Amino acid sequence: MNKVMVLLSGGMDSTVLATKLLREGHRVQGLTIHYGQRHAREIDAAVRVAQALNIQQHTIWVPEGILANAESSQSGGAAVPEGSYDEESMKATVVPNRNMFLLSIAVARAIAEKCSLVAYAAHVGDHAIYPDCREEFVLAMARAVSLCDWNPPALVAPFTNRTKAEIVQIGIDADAPFEHTWTCYKGGLRHCGRCGTCVERLEAFDKAGYIDPVQYADYEFWRTAVKR
Amino acid sequence: MNKVMVLLSGGMDSTVLATKLLREGHRVQGLTIHYGQRHAREIDAAVRVAQALNIQQHTIWVPEGILANAESSQSGGAAVPEGSYDEESMKATVVPNRNMFLLSIAVARAIAEKCSLVAYAAHVGDHAIYPDCREEFVLAMARAVSLCDWNPPALVAPFTNRTKAEIVQIGIDADAPFEHTWTCYKGGLRHCGRCGTCVERLEAFDKAGYIDPVQYADYEFWRTAVKR
Repeated sequence: MNKVMVLLSGGMDSTVLATKLLREGHRVQGLTIHYGQRHAREIDAAVRVAQALNIQQHTIWVPEGILANAESSQSGGAAVPEGSYDEESMKATVVPNRNMFLLSIAVARAIAEKCSLVAYAAHVGDHAIYPDCREEFVLAMARAVSLCDWNPPALVAPFTNRTKAEIVQIGIDADAPFEHTWTCYKGGLRHCGRCGTCVERLEAFDKAGYIDPVQYADYEFWRTAVKR
Repeated sequence: MNKVMVLLSGGMDSTVLATKLLREGHRVQGLTIHYGQRHAREIDAAVRVAQALNIQQHTIWVPEGILANAESSQSGGAAVPEGSYDEESMKATVVPNRNMFLLSIAVARAIAEKCSLVAYAAHVGDHAIYPDCREEFVLAMARAVSLCDWNPPALVAPFTNRTKAEIVQIGIDADAPFEHTWTCYKGGLRHCGRCGTCVERLEAFDKAGYIDPVQYADYEFWRTAVKR
């Protein structure tokens, strides 16, 4: 049994990770970092996920201008691209060095709270677009984390080599509260079903053979958007 | 000639580093990150150093609570210890995972500004107290930085194996504006001369054979405080 700090974005991957660790018997707390995304919809989701799991959750608000990049649509610049996660359209969603920044805060907090693990849900499906979701980046960060303190936490990222469909299956097996998660890059009342992350999520549930419990404005767009 | 982002704290080490890189012909810009230290005296120093060097300088204000640790005197907790940098008294000045956090922001900004180098002035004199000033930490971070983006900057820390006295000598040779720097952990009008960083600085100038141009409230305390 470890005390674990999980980077809990409110999305599906980190929710599955927190649930899995909880079911394995660890003492889990969620850390949600708001760093200037377009909308606070994900923060609400993180709070609801933590309530559903009955775990501690803490939100840190990072003001605009610390990490934000004018070129990135996640921080208020360009428009959110629709369609599948092809490289060109989704590069606009890259926030430079986002994961090192988020991990640095999570590790600092883990040290202060005497957690022995920091867990985050980077996975292989992201790696073509996000350089800082690649396994080699995670391994380099794990080494740096192991040296950052005299009594450092260990960094674990068990989904690095999992597909999104496998993460859905792990979540189903662990009874993850998918219904409270938020994935869409747009800030509507329902998931749009058309942006890259909605398309990826719908495809993952379909591949895994389950129905996604969240509501979509457009359930069918993803079938035409995904390149086979 | 590289475009270089230097973490410019306003202290002596980063000022010498910025000066050295500038004299070597690089295009240098300074990044100063205020993360909840006791006083803003260092920020003023960074601005003045940048003016003296005629380089761009940008300050980022990180609100309390993102990195701060109640146990650390640098973020408003315990009292600042006096005397030399012996391990027990100075451990109170450790902010957990400070350097990973500062580097993550500097790297993000370097990517946005298309800098090819990020430079920081970690040095060996710190390593007994600060785990994240050790060379192995710097090397692990350099590897992580090299993987964090498709077009990452390189991380350089040329003072890792230099003593403070050697840094003084490098600064003298490069004509660093030592008179504008700020080192003291206390926020007075003059350097106190009694805290660990003042003692270390006075000792370094003495070893290098130069007179420190900043004003001290107590010039002689360090001689009694340093263990020979």
